[in-house]
Amino acid sequence: MSNTNLQDYSHKRFNILTGEWVLVSPHRAKRPWQGQNEAVNNEKRPSYDKSCYLCAGNTRINGEINPEYKDVFVFTNDFAALQNDSPTFNVNDGLLKAQSETGICKVICFSPDHSKSLADMSASEIQKVVFAWQKEFTELSKNPNINYVQIFENKGAVMGCSNPHPHGQIWSQSSLPNEVDKKNTQQLNYYNNNNSSLLGDYLTQELEKKERIIFENNGFVVLVPFWAIWPFEAMIVPKKHQANILEMNDEQALQYGEAIAVLTKAYDKIFNTSFPYSSGIHQAPTDGNANKHWHWHMSFYPPLLRSASVKKFMVGYEMFGTPQRDITAEQAVKMIKDCL
Amino acid sequence: MSNTNLQDYSHKRFNILTGEWVLVSPHRAKRPWQGQNEAVNNEKRPSYDKSCYLCAGNTRINGEINPEYKDVFVFTNDFAALQNDSPTFNVNDGLLKAQSETGICKVICFSPDHSKSLADMSASEIQKVVFAWQKEFTELSKNPNINYVQIFENKGAVMGCSNPHPHGQIWSQSSLPNEVDKKNTQQLNYYNNNNSSLLGDYLTQELEKKERIIFENNGFVVLVPFWAIWPFEAMIVPKKHQANILEMNDEQALQYGEAIAVLTKAYDKIFNTSFPYSSGIHQAPTDGNANKHWHWHMSFYPPLLRSASVKKFMVGYEMFGTPQRDITAEQAVKMIKDCL
Ligand SMILES: O=P(O)(O)O[C@H]1O[C@H](CO)[C@@H](O)[C@H](O)[C@H]1O
Ligand SMILES: O=P(O)(O)O[C@H]1O[C@H](CO)[C@@H](O)[C@H](O)[C@H]1O
Repeated sequence: MSNTNLQDYSHKRFNILTGEWVLVSPHRAKRPWQGQNEAVNNEKRPSYDKSCYLCAGNTRINGEINPEYKDVFVFTNDFAALQNDSPTFNVNDGLLKAQSETGICKVICFSPDHSKSLADMSASEIQKVVFAWQKEFTELSKNPNINYVQIFENKGAVMGCSNPHPHGQIWSQSSLPNEVDKKNTQQLNYYNNNNSSLLGDYLTQELEKKERIIFENNGFVVLVPFWAIWPFEAMIVPKKHQANILEMNDEQALQYGEAIAVLTKAYDKIFNTSFPYSSGIHQAPTDGNANKHWHWHMSFYPPLLRSASVKKFMVGYEMFGTPQRDITAEQAVKMIKDCL
Repeated sequence: MSNTNLQDYSHKRFNILTGEWVLVSPHRAKRPWQGQNEAVNNEKRPSYDKSCYLCAGNTRINGEINPEYKDVFVFTNDFAALQNDSPTFNVNDGLLKAQSETGICKVICFSPDHSKSLADMSASEIQKVVFAWQKEFTELSKNPNINYVQIFENKGAVMGCSNPHPHGQIWSQSSLPNEVDKKNTQQLNYYNNNNSSLLGDYLTQELEKKERIIFENNGFVVLVPFWAIWPFEAMIVPKKHQANILEMNDEQALQYGEAIAVLTKAYDKIFNTSFPYSSGIHQAPTDGNANKHWHWHMSFYPPLLRSASVKKFMVGYEMFGTPQRDITAEQAVKMIKDCL
């Protein structure tokens, strides 16, 4: 890094996509840890678990039976946070403001093999997951009440995942979630001012500098963003300026699968454990507009900081002030690249 | 609640202080939980622990010896996230933007008694903590490089607290943290438009409705804000429009102590455990301006949702979309009031 101050002294970095800051304390990783250790379960799971409600052929809590699926299986969430059939209402009572929010929540099993995670799957196996995301996105975006589709995965017990079977979720809804709204504004402002993609221009700069790049293939770049919050946060960005995942062709879907495979495999090696994270795809709203200012991307927010059992806690200062990190993005990149 | 839809259907509520939304899914608490359980440690701690680096007379990691303090003891954090003596710099390199951030971090022991928490302390014992906050705030705000003082507490191992000795922290710094910046904007806009305090007017409305009030005395109201994110989130607000904690007189400091005592004691009864939380005081910047638009307040963000061992995970959707809660603010108020 040309500016060595960034590796030595506390500073804040600006997230161009959200317009918010992160506090970086490069010297702080040295402090001893006497706090909570997470339970680590490195036991190999069986390929089939008869008590798992996501395994093929098993019965779910609501009595439905899963098909004998061979690759990917999608169903509507049995305990959805958003309902599709609720009434529309508005509360506008002085300083109390509320609005009904409807939507559809789905669960997507990545593989019938209970023992696997994305890190154990090949690029072409993950390509099938990408195809399923595209199919769901297409279908959900046809619904006039759905204006945004959030694809995400919670991996690992420490990330609130209640079932180790490889799966992700899709929550789709009528309005823009907070985080998406911020990125929408930042990208729109930039696009209006520069007539080019904010993330595309950022990518160009990073590819020149080569200081935060983890991996690239013809279609995608995997990098640690300059403004990363989580210790080993990373981002997968398509090289082409695409507003949403439907603009990917089949070849790019395979390249995307490779990018996910490479990153998740490297993660698992950092602390020699199945690396927990939440990942998510941010992309253009499905509101019927072209949304040319959007450049879709996938982010990984993994909580582990020092070992398989010591995570970063985003608590007091982080909740009331600003997210704070203890190692720099550049240090994290080096550690991830050592695991490629 | 006049609007019963809010208790039955998914909706979003607006946080007037941050300008952001929270997704509420009243029906979702019914879903079964098969995920991670937190370790619960209800063991009574001794009043003195010779290995604790916060107990009176003990030696800290850097070799300093704590005094034989009798009530409150404050020292500069041995592993501060912000440094006071670092150089000033600015990175403005295309889309990479960073700025040096300096500050002072302190630790404040609430009591020499290792076995206690605020919930075990009387209003007048907590009043001494309030006096210490006022003293630190006064001193730090005199520093021309300190423009904001964040007072907070992380309580419980699940909140990343590495030492059970009753203590909080103060991180003070040169710029406004993200969350403070949002509240600054919202309060300023309202004050400019209405010539009155946003939070003061909200308080008036809540005191009339009486639907979300937990407790009040002459000086303070304890309530669950309409837009609460965390399952049992609560807020302590001074009835008088005060920009920062220095505007409290001694009598109000005692009333404030009582409000903290009442709330934390009720929390401990909800799941019959020492209730973990992060708490923090948001108040006017110390930038030399009057900041009349600010109405200081203290918030509590406790993670437990279903029991002493099952917390709410703010993960995938919450990280990429919008914070989501499974019980309504009104349900939470009832449960907290049952514990008064
Ligand atoms: O300084 P502590 O208590 O060791 O650390 C704790 O609080 C800090 C401020 O909220 C967080 O940054 C840390 O992640 C957390 O473990
Ligand atoms: O739906 P799940 O996987 O049971 O639930 C998990 O993910 C959700 C979406 O991020 C969160 O709201 C829950 O707190 C978490 O436990």
